[in-house]
Amino acid sequence: MVSSDFSIEEQEEEEEDYFDYSYDVAGTEPGSITIDPLALPSRLTLIEYDENNAYRRVNTQPKDCVSCLTNNLISWANIEGLGTENILREVEQVFQLHPLILEDVVSVPQRPKIEDYPDQLLIILHSIKPNKNEIGFTTEQISFILGKNYLLTFQEDEIEDFTRIIDRIRLNQGKVRQLGADYLAYLLLDTLIDNYFPVLEDYGERIEDLEDQIVLNPSKKTLQEIYNIRRELLALRRSIWPLRNLFNELTREDNNLITKEVYVYFRDCYYHTIQILDILETYRELASSLMDVLISSMSNKMNEVITLLTIISSIFIPLTFIAGLYGMNFEYMPELKWRWGYFGTLFLMLLIAGGMTFYFWRRGWFKLFLQK
Amino acid sequence: MVSSDFSIEEQEEEEEDYFDYSYDVAGTEPGSITIDPLALPSRLTLIEYDENNAYRRVNTQPKDCVSCLTNNLISWANIEGLGTENILREVEQVFQLHPLILEDVVSVPQRPKIEDYPDQLLIILHSIKPNKNEIGFTTEQISFILGKNYLLTFQEDEIEDFTRIIDRIRLNQGKVRQLGADYLAYLLLDTLIDNYFPVLEDYGERIEDLEDQIVLNPSKKTLQEIYNIRRELLALRRSIWPLRNLFNELTREDNNLITKEVYVYFRDCYYHTIQILDILETYRELASSLMDVLISSMSNKMNEVITLLTIISSIFIPLTFIAGLYGMNFEYMPELKWRWGYFGTLFLMLLIAGGMTFYFWRRGWFKLFLQK
Amino acid sequence: MVSSDFSIEEQEEEEEDYFDYSYDVAGTEPGSITIDPLALPSRLTLIEYDENNAYRRVNTQPKDCVSCLTNNLISWANIEGLGTENILREVEQVFQLHPLILEDVVSVPQRPKIEDYPDQLLIILHSIKPNKNEIGFTTEQISFILGKNYLLTFQEDEIEDFTRIIDRIRLNQGKVRQLGADYLAYLLLDTLIDNYFPVLEDYGERIEDLEDQIVLNPSKKTLQEIYNIRRELLALRRSIWPLRNLFNELTREDNNLITKEVYVYFRDCYYHTIQILDILETYRELASSLMDVLISSMSNKMNEVITLLTIISSIFIPLTFIAGLYGMNFEYMPELKWRWGYFGTLFLMLLIAGGMTFYFWRRGWFKLFLQK
Amino acid sequence: MVSSDFSIEEQEEEEEDYFDYSYDVAGTEPGSITIDPLALPSRLTLIEYDENNAYRRVNTQPKDCVSCLTNNLISWANIEGLGTENILREVEQVFQLHPLILEDVVSVPQRPKIEDYPDQLLIILHSIKPNKNEIGFTTEQISFILGKNYLLTFQEDEIEDFTRIIDRIRLNQGKVRQLGADYLAYLLLDTLIDNYFPVLEDYGERIEDLEDQIVLNPSKKTLQEIYNIRRELLALRRSIWPLRNLFNELTREDNNLITKEVYVYFRDCYYHTIQILDILETYRELASSLMDVLISSMSNKMNEVITLLTIISSIFIPLTFIAGLYGMNFEYMPELKWRWGYFGTLFLMLLIAGGMTFYFWRRGWFKLFLQK
Amino acid sequence: MVSSDFSIEEQEEEEEDYFDYSYDVAGTEPGSITIDPLALPSRLTLIEYDENNAYRRVNTQPKDCVSCLTNNLISWANIEGLGTENILREVEQVFQLHPLILEDVVSVPQRPKIEDYPDQLLIILHSIKPNKNEIGFTTEQISFILGKNYLLTFQEDEIEDFTRIIDRIRLNQGKVRQLGADYLAYLLLDTLIDNYFPVLEDYGERIEDLEDQIVLNPSKKTLQEIYNIRRELLALRRSIWPLRNLFNELTREDNNLITKEVYVYFRDCYYHTIQILDILETYRELASSLMDVLISSMSNKMNEVITLLTIISSIFIPLTFIAGLYGMNFEYMPELKWRWGYFGTLFLMLLIAGGMTFYFWRRGWFKLFLQK
Repeated sequence: MVSSDFSIEEQEEEEEDYFDYSYDVAGTEPGSITIDPLALPSRLTLIEYDENNAYRRVNTQPKDCVSCLTNNLISWANIEGLGTENILREVEQVFQLHPLILEDVVSVPQRPKIEDYPDQLLIILHSIKPNKNEIGFTTEQISFILGKNYLLTFQEDEIEDFTRIIDRIRLNQGKVRQLGADYLAYLLLDTLIDNYFPVLEDYGERIEDLEDQIVLNPSKKTLQEIYNIRRELLALRRSIWPLRNLFNELTREDNNLITKEVYVYFRDCYYHTIQILDILETYRELASSLMDVLISSMSNKMNEVITLLTIISSIFIPLTFIAGLYGMNFEYMPELKWRWGYFGTLFLMLLIAGGMTFYFWRRGWFKLFLQK
Repeated sequence: MVSSDFSIEEQEEEEEDYFDYSYDVAGTEPGSITIDPLALPSRLTLIEYDENNAYRRVNTQPKDCVSCLTNNLISWANIEGLGTENILREVEQVFQLHPLILEDVVSVPQRPKIEDYPDQLLIILHSIKPNKNEIGFTTEQISFILGKNYLLTFQEDEIEDFTRIIDRIRLNQGKVRQLGADYLAYLLLDTLIDNYFPVLEDYGERIEDLEDQIVLNPSKKTLQEIYNIRRELLALRRSIWPLRNLFNELTREDNNLITKEVYVYFRDCYYHTIQILDILETYRELASSLMDVLISSMSNKMNEVITLLTIISSIFIPLTFIAGLYGMNFEYMPELKWRWGYFGTLFLMLLIAGGMTFYFWRRGWFKLFLQK
Repeated sequence: MVSSDFSIEEQEEEEEDYFDYSYDVAGTEPGSITIDPLALPSRLTLIEYDENNAYRRVNTQPKDCVSCLTNNLISWANIEGLGTENILREVEQVFQLHPLILEDVVSVPQRPKIEDYPDQLLIILHSIKPNKNEIGFTTEQISFILGKNYLLTFQEDEIEDFTRIIDRIRLNQGKVRQLGADYLAYLLLDTLIDNYFPVLEDYGERIEDLEDQIVLNPSKKTLQEIYNIRRELLALRRSIWPLRNLFNELTREDNNLITKEVYVYFRDCYYHTIQILDILETYRELASSLMDVLISSMSNKMNEVITLLTIISSIFIPLTFIAGLYGMNFEYMPELKWRWGYFGTLFLMLLIAGGMTFYFWRRGWFKLFLQK
Repeated sequence: MVSSDFSIEEQEEEEEDYFDYSYDVAGTEPGSITIDPLALPSRLTLIEYDENNAYRRVNTQPKDCVSCLTNNLISWANIEGLGTENILREVEQVFQLHPLILEDVVSVPQRPKIEDYPDQLLIILHSIKPNKNEIGFTTEQISFILGKNYLLTFQEDEIEDFTRIIDRIRLNQGKVRQLGADYLAYLLLDTLIDNYFPVLEDYGERIEDLEDQIVLNPSKKTLQEIYNIRRELLALRRSIWPLRNLFNELTREDNNLITKEVYVYFRDCYYHTIQILDILETYRELASSLMDVLISSMSNKMNEVITLLTIISSIFIPLTFIAGLYGMNFEYMPELKWRWGYFGTLFLMLLIAGGMTFYFWRRGWFKLFLQK
Repeated sequence: MVSSDFSIEEQEEEEEDYFDYSYDVAGTEPGSITIDPLALPSRLTLIEYDENNAYRRVNTQPKDCVSCLTNNLISWANIEGLGTENILREVEQVFQLHPLILEDVVSVPQRPKIEDYPDQLLIILHSIKPNKNEIGFTTEQISFILGKNYLLTFQEDEIEDFTRIIDRIRLNQGKVRQLGADYLAYLLLDTLIDNYFPVLEDYGERIEDLEDQIVLNPSKKTLQEIYNIRRELLALRRSIWPLRNLFNELTREDNNLITKEVYVYFRDCYYHTIQILDILETYRELASSLMDVLISSMSNKMNEVITLLTIISSIFIPLTFIAGLYGMNFEYMPELKWRWGYFGTLFLMLLIAGGMTFYFWRRGWFKLFLQK
């Protein structure tokens, strides 16, 4: 599958894709890969640079990367699209990847992870993009293989924000040309993580909208919306949660692929991840509180309705009985003949109705109807 | 018991089997075993191979395995069926198993575990299979004893997916013939773990079905289904949860039975286990949210019903009272003689009914009935 | 108190005993003991054995144990009943117990614990027994003091399952006579822990019974039963939970009283404890889910009842109003004279009733009554 | 404030005192102290002893303590009342306390803690006392400063149970005169901790009382009582919870102020603290279950009430309609003239009532009223 | 944004600001800063002192701070307002700050954190201020950069409580002039943390007010208020929670910028933070209990209302039916002619009403109405 789309309208089809991970059929050889027929054709872009020069070759062949491992330039081989098996396999050979790496790269989506291979560091994470004109978000898997002098990236599809970084390399802006492949990896990771913030902000607004609705006018749709928010935040959390430990390990462990100077930047990524999780957990708690509020609010509404029923019934049922009493057709009913029978009865009814009303007023039952 | 079947239809009988573990009667000698009378007869298959050759002996005798401990071939002794005590005891003797090992192997089901014995590593876990034509799943215990050059496996019943691996050994596919008994153990474990994914996927679909049902038309059956899902996910979790720590320990600890080259594969098993648990916890959270939604949804439905009752009662009860009033048989009721008494009363009733209706409309009580 | 009985019938008296621990009056000298006046008189049984011989002295005196500390035999001094202070004090002296040990042994119940004293290891845990003919269970404290060559046990009352182990010593069955006092301690502990399984199984069955009841016919008794199960499982958990850490520590730490050969057996105890806790937590989660199901089920039942009320009221209240209308005694009510007034009214009523019925049928409100 | 009183009657005033901690106005100099105008005047009692002698000076002056630091006697300087600043300041000087110590001692209440200062160990905890004739409890802060040969204690008010320990020193009972200041500290701490048990026992009884009430007759008062118990247990937990870690650290860490012989006693304190927390958590879980039971029980009660309403309404509303029907005054109502019209109608009514009753009986709705 | 205001009235606009963190647009160069157009203009105040002298320069220029790094005075450069980029950049240059530091300082709000840079320690936390005349609070980010001999602070706005510390430096009160920049940092941190206490106290009072309201008279406003308290406590917790670990690390780790003498003061900050979190968690638990109480209380109220309805309906509906029965106009209704027909019917009605009343009284349904 190329990308996991997440939206309310088509939630039935998408949901399953979102919450599952890609897995092998039991008993297949480890390291074997299955190309998704819907995956985009693979396109390899090679960028090489040092402090003085920067080259870029679009749509190049894996064999052009052979020199990356030996020359002194920093190389970034970026594969967009996971649909052309022979390109992927050639890249695997050129960069001498462990067979399990390519399996993880191609079987999307995987749970985000960081793995240490000899001389290579594999980082898998998800990029995120809010859906256009819609509620929800789309994620895409991105895999980084960081080597001594090179960075290899695999994307399901093109990521627009990377062009900014390519420009910075081209124009020699910032420190990217002074520092190594590890700093480049940081720049890309940082971009991916910063994309989570605006997605989260949308949920903040949706929760806010609910807060107003819920007390004034709870309905089936409110309930559905709370559930959807909880479900999507759960999906978001699964996508970001593993990063927390990953970056923490990365910044603590001794790793010869990341220089000391760049460590402090990875630590910054770690803090951003914590901030995202912090907001996420807050929203999850708020959404869970809102469920409680909704139940209370419905209960309150029912109280209101039932109180009205009780007031009206309690006042009129006894009166109706009295009316019924004197509607009986017995021959010997002395009251019927009395001069003031009718008016006496009316007065009695008034007394009962007044007494009841007074009782309800004293118990504060009328207040419910003045609340709004 | 041969296998623990898990399905809704026969849940009363099966449930107990599912959630309990096998245990001894208090005070029995440790290491003593009790053969389940329903267990299948034991059948020993011996597979021996090195890079160049591969032999297979079906239905062989335990004493044929004596050479396994000394020759240079990788040996896999696979026992299917736990019902023939003397075969099991002979195997115990040939491979010099600790008395507690056979007890754990035979007393099914045990909690999954990994135990270090001198020169042997015991791994107990559960294979899983979705029930045919039914909801639910079946588990079976599989025990691995990994030695220097050999692997011993005990299955309650035949596991079909293992034939693929046997074929791979026979046909010398992949790396299985190049690597040791530890890699073979990994291949089998990986197969067992990958089987959890399709079972989980079913639960994803059942939860999705519920999501639709629950808001539109919550019923007793929905409630039952949520409970069943929660119960079965709990059972699934018990079966997979211990694996997480087991594999983590296995990949961290120094173990002379697993070579460095194979470690990375066991670590892959660990990541798969984490992915399964990740999905499982997500489903458990969703199922728990659904319970909240169900309660809210029922509350909403009751609100709807009771609002209708209140509207109808509030409009007609006062009218009925008025009708009753003029149905009284008092002799002196001046209104009854009035020319426009009847029509005036009708008009009054119309006023009251209209006023009430307007009040309910203003409070938004009619909206409930336009929701659907 | 001799034993803490736990049953529904007499729960009011027993409960308090179950959940509290024994404690001193503030300010008493540490090491002072208070004999429970209801405690059984103490009875000392001394069993001594090596590979070749086994002796047993029933109802012996503490001073007969002096030789235990010096001779080469394995000695097991078993005290049943905690009611005779001078016997307890003499045992303390003979075995040179730390003053805090006897306090813990006599002040029952204590929280299970393992404590390292110089040259002695104190293990306190609870034996469990299902109540005869009743729901619930009884616990009793058992204290082990493991020394170099001897084991000292204190029981509140006789434990029947220990006779099997005494027989095994007498008849030289299994490995008990080949191994030391540590193996004997393991045998006794294993017996005590295995007794938890059948008690737990009962709760499994009670939960199953509830599952059926709860959806079909929830009642006050169901509610009470869920609460009782939760309460008793909580009590069970308190009794078994501390063992988990105890055995874990015991199997990890360096302890010169437990030989390497016996360690593997203690580890087996640890796994059994984990299995028990695993089942326990599963039952606790199920019981907690059942509470949710009960609340939903009650809500569903109320929905059903109230829907019936609403259907009947909504159909008949308007009809009754119409009937009341034409029961009025106004002189000028033209309809009353009409030839088809009565039948027209009947027809109108039929229309209203039919319309209402159709409306309720379309909203699916009748389905509720066809569910069962 | 001298002591924090905790009771239902005056809960509004007290609560706030109970849950807050004492704090400085922002920006005040660290080490500055504010004497509570309501605090009792400080009274210093000095007790000095060794194995052979014991002296006691009541109402003595801080400067009399100067010798404590140098002589070979064990000294216990006990300050009751925190109201006299100059006494407190002089004590600070004599014992060379760190400025932050006195601040913590005087600003009551503080969170319980243990702090290592060079040559001194500060232990702050809370004593507890059940309120006389009332529900609830009172806590008081006690601070210990343990030095090489001396113990300094600060109490908000006199603690009665300490007189027993003073007597034990005077009469040379137990081991107090043989051991050092650390053992004396243990004796006092143990006394304070043991006082928590009877307070907890009261909550056990209150929970038990609730268990009976809740199913039979839930009311507003039950609800209030559950909330109060939860609130007070929360307060209790805050007071005892920090002790757990404190004692654990104390018994693990290397501390030159506590001799090896006395360590085992501090470990005993640790176990008591765990027992208290164990009971506390159990009660908290029970109280939380009770809330669920209460909600269910109320729901059940409402079901009962509403079922009665529905039964009576469903039976009588159709009958009333029929009666109303034949109460109409149409001129042409043939049934009215029939000979058996009245009795036929009565029979029809009986049929309807009987059918309804049968239907309700079949659905089991009458069972509700036979429950109690 | 200059400060995040938090109040009920304007909650819709503010909330979003409160729960989000500041973040970069994805793909911007790390270390780049964006000045908030609403930020106050930056104003630099330099205070330099040693034991003998203290100087203060208000509104000075960054270049005046160059000497701070070399001279022997303790320097405190305090920047109020984050609106003037060139001042901020100059300060960055003078103090040789890492590019990521200024980014964190300017992008407010950040999650509180402590970061170790070579030779500098960055501490970011939030100051808090209760809103004037309103419910809620305002937070502001404060950043500390602690160097060898200097302290650099960045505030969003002036903090009044710091003037007290400036006075203490000027007047040489307390120990501030004897100790280094680390002690000055402590003084400022302590001031900020102490400000949390009075804010928390307000929540204690609001919870107390709710406790009274909730049982007596639960309403929509109560529900809203509970939700608001939960939401604001969640916001408070996010602001203070990270400090816990920060201070803990600071007091444990080896840090050459904080002298041993000052460590004990930082530990005191740590204890204060724990106290705040302790209160906060207690309030959160209370608020969550209150939600349960509210739901119960509403349920209780509904029970009350519905019981009244049932009592009145159950008594009068049968009576009304009887009255209706004898209001029928059949010609042959023998009872109508009976002499005592009317009074007999009245008597029957009395019997039914009395029986019903007795039944309800026995079931305790009237008690509900005597509760209040």
